[in-house]
Amino acid sequence: MGQVRVDLTISLDGYGTTTDQTPEDPFGQDWNRLQAAYVATRTFRERVLGQTGKGTTGLDNDYAAAYFEGIGAEIMGAGKFGLHAHPGDPDWRGWWGSNPPFRCPVFVLTHESRPSLEMEGGTTFHFVQTSAEETLEHAREAAGDRDVRIGGGVRVVRSYLAAGLVDRLHVGIVPILLGRGENLWAELRELERGYKVTSEIAESGTIHVTFSR
Amino acid sequence: MGQVRVDLTISLDGYGTTTDQTPEDPFGQDWNRLQAAYVATRTFRERVLGQTGKGTTGLDNDYAAAYFEGIGAEIMGAGKFGLHAHPGDPDWRGWWGSNPPFRCPVFVLTHESRPSLEMEGGTTFHFVQTSAEETLEHAREAAGDRDVRIGGGVRVVRSYLAAGLVDRLHVGIVPILLGRGENLWAELRELERGYKVTSEIAESGTIHVTFSR
Repeated sequence: MGQVRVDLTISLDGYGTTTDQTPEDPFGQDWNRLQAAYVATRTFRERVLGQTGKGTTGLDNDYAAAYFEGIGAEIMGAGKFGLHAHPGDPDWRGWWGSNPPFRCPVFVLTHESRPSLEMEGGTTFHFVQTSAEETLEHAREAAGDRDVRIGGGVRVVRSYLAAGLVDRLHVGIVPILLGRGENLWAELRELERGYKVTSEIAESGTIHVTFSR
Repeated sequence: MGQVRVDLTISLDGYGTTTDQTPEDPFGQDWNRLQAAYVATRTFRERVLGQTGKGTTGLDNDYAAAYFEGIGAEIMGAGKFGLHAHPGDPDWRGWWGSNPPFRCPVFVLTHESRPSLEMEGGTTFHFVQTSAEETLEHAREAAGDRDVRIGGGVRVVRSYLAAGLVDRLHVGIVPILLGRGENLWAELRELERGYKVTSEIAESGTIHVTFSR
């Protein structure tokens, strides 16, 4: 059986979401600052933007590549899929275009009942009303021997961490202070118990911290 | 003129104080976990415990030694000196015995008016009712060409950081989650602006992050 994994980028003060989006700047400057090193990687350029032969190839890229390796299913919250921004819109198909980067079954935790969406490249979105634990069981079945990623958002990740269901947590900590948003570390006192924690610093300054069982 | 410096140990979730003290365990287990790598250093053993030839000599010790180098005066809050635990007690002389490790003038921010305390080894405690800025001016005068350290607690440090008065901030981030206490990063959005931020990992797992101008 595969592992349950989380990969997130957060600020030095623990925030994994940003709050300065506007209609004119839908990502926001904070998102740009938080994701700059990840967006610069060769893996992001290839896998998400469809560019070839561009981007950084150092430690940030190693983690970016590992993000996609060995994943057989993903679980994400309704917000990550975009259902908070597009409630009840049957034509909404996520933020990632016709060929999303997941390339595996994705279980979207939502109160909205919707038919599954089969996309190009192997991604199928399933919209589920099951509990975190039940959803994980279904994702494990779908993943077979491969790993299940808890993809976000931060609150979904935190609920799986708090329930002790995550085998491996990697955070890329960007040395900026956002001061507001969803804090990954909230209510996770002594999370480190039962994990080995290792860290290394990328050329970009990002601090990569991994909790592994 | 010297720099204004801060050196603190915090948890991965930003807490620089601990909350599990009891009469039977006055430091608490969290303090032990937070400070274990620092307490293990040769510098701490020599400078604070008076032991010679013991303790670690790696990166944690480099930072521990740098903590004491070039400091000409320190500013600390009343809590760090122990006035919250010993209010109005004229015989209270701090936690550090007759020969405190500071070996320089120490300005204690307090509403209590007390005569200055001259200790062995060069430490003199001055109890001041001046503002943060005025106290810094006095400390700079006392330090001459040397640096001024804002010694803590966390709230005192945060007030100097928020006022833009700190030239160099070093934090030793211990990869544990305390989940409660005083958070160093609270209300410091975009602190990194105007600083260069660098990081390195010690053998102990402590992540040393330095903000410098």
